[in-house]
Amino acid sequence: MSPRRVGIFGATGVVGRAMLTCLAESSWNDLQLRLFASPVSRGMTLSFRGENLPVEEMEFTVFENLDLAFFAVGAAFSRTWAPVARAAGCTVIDNSSAWRGEEGVPLVVPELNGAVLAEPHPLVANPNCSTIIGLMATGPLARAFGLRRMIVSTYQAVSGAGAAGLHELSAAMEAEQRGEEFRPQVFGDVIHHNLLPWIGEAAGNGWTDEELKMREESRKILNINDLEVFCTCVRVAVKRAHALSVHVELEEPTNRETLL
Amino acid sequence: MSPRRVGIFGATGVVGRAMLTCLAESSWNDLQLRLFASPVSRGMTLSFRGENLPVEEMEFTVFENLDLAFFAVGAAFSRTWAPVARAAGCTVIDNSSAWRGEEGVPLVVPELNGAVLAEPHPLVANPNCSTIIGLMATGPLARAFGLRRMIVSTYQAVSGAGAAGLHELSAAMEAEQRGEEFRPQVFGDVIHHNLLPWIGEAAGNGWTDEELKMREESRKILNINDLEVFCTCVRVAVKRAHALSVHVELEEPTNRETLL
Repeated sequence: MSPRRVGIFGATGVVGRAMLTCLAESSWNDLQLRLFASPVSRGMTLSFRGENLPVEEMEFTVFENLDLAFFAVGAAFSRTWAPVARAAGCTVIDNSSAWRGEEGVPLVVPELNGAVLAEPHPLVANPNCSTIIGLMATGPLARAFGLRRMIVSTYQAVSGAGAAGLHELSAAMEAEQRGEEFRPQVFGDVIHHNLLPWIGEAAGNGWTDEELKMREESRKILNINDLEVFCTCVRVAVKRAHALSVHVELEEPTNRETLL
Repeated sequence: MSPRRVGIFGATGVVGRAMLTCLAESSWNDLQLRLFASPVSRGMTLSFRGENLPVEEMEFTVFENLDLAFFAVGAAFSRTWAPVARAAGCTVIDNSSAWRGEEGVPLVVPELNGAVLAEPHPLVANPNCSTIIGLMATGPLARAFGLRRMIVSTYQAVSGAGAAGLHELSAAMEAEQRGEEFRPQVFGDVIHHNLLPWIGEAAGNGWTDEELKMREESRKILNINDLEVFCTCVRVAVKRAHALSVHVELEEPTNRETLL
């Protein structure tokens, strides 16, 4: 039975809008969808299947009237509100990093380990965007040959930093056309015409947390505890392209011809 | 003694102009510099140390009046004209891929193996741009610890495809602003807002020749015949940034802390 009362939290962001599109195209026909965002979005409406839905501010008791909530906000929001939703009997699918490493919380790429959702779970975590892309390629290799090591370099669009990232690239381009200096606020340097080998927060030994997510999440999803993962994350001055270069070492000797 | 009669071939291109700047800033004071380019540059002049130098068309006998020629054209040009220059007693420093693999032709990154130029050579080859950048980092590691394997992903600006590449990015940006469709001529797809994981020509087994250059050239410059090199080359929609992500495996066990 499909959930009827569904909410998207962070509905006005880049990810929230993508969720809205996915739900509009889904086979869930009797959906009562509600949209939530922060007070800055007050008064907005978003189109869903020909209807203009208001963007609401959330309140503490909202989860009592929802079967399913998609969280597209941030880790701090999820840490606070996922337990509240759970206590109210509302299932949460969380796009943030808050619960990905939590024991008992499934971390799901549907094409790879969607089977874990055959049993109901009150809280399901989405992996990081780069992890999803990388494992869509290496997951089947891991199953067929065993996977020992992944060396990954990412090419991540500014949209990975949300609407603010997209805006910063546009603003930097416009500043260049006007011949004005641009002061970056979202990224650590001017992203226009540039590459920045730094995404997220410092995580020790020269790594960023974005790079370590690839390691921790891949181990959990593929269920290979000692998988070696070395990831370098780079922000590139493109709007939406998100790509990875991945070098794998397999357990079972094979050669490129076998794979092609 | 510094060479007096010097020529730059391909002087109006992106690399040729960079060579002009380097020579202007060099300590070679009594330089008689001549500039050469194809007939499309007829009538152009380029500024050198406050003087406007004419861009000449080359002729067969030109090398008889030059001590040193910088070639910044292409491999086909170099294959034809380097032997002619050599026969005329003119030393060639070649930026193309034509002679890089040739036995007896030094392939030089001055900071790493510049010592080979202590003896005179009639022909010296420059490595590929990515090889230079990569080896500036891994060369000292190879010397200190021994190098077994390099896994490289490149982030290469459109300027790597010369003035035509820079023009194509600008033209695609302008077409977008006018709301027009853009038909790429230099790159295999629209490069604006994009990443293209293909540089150069197909070289078998899914590799491009740009990717195999990193392997062959690194082995020659570092003098490690069995060095394992796996390189993925990606063109990114930036004008001049050129970056590499490099993962190394050393012969001598060490750890990240030793290196930092």
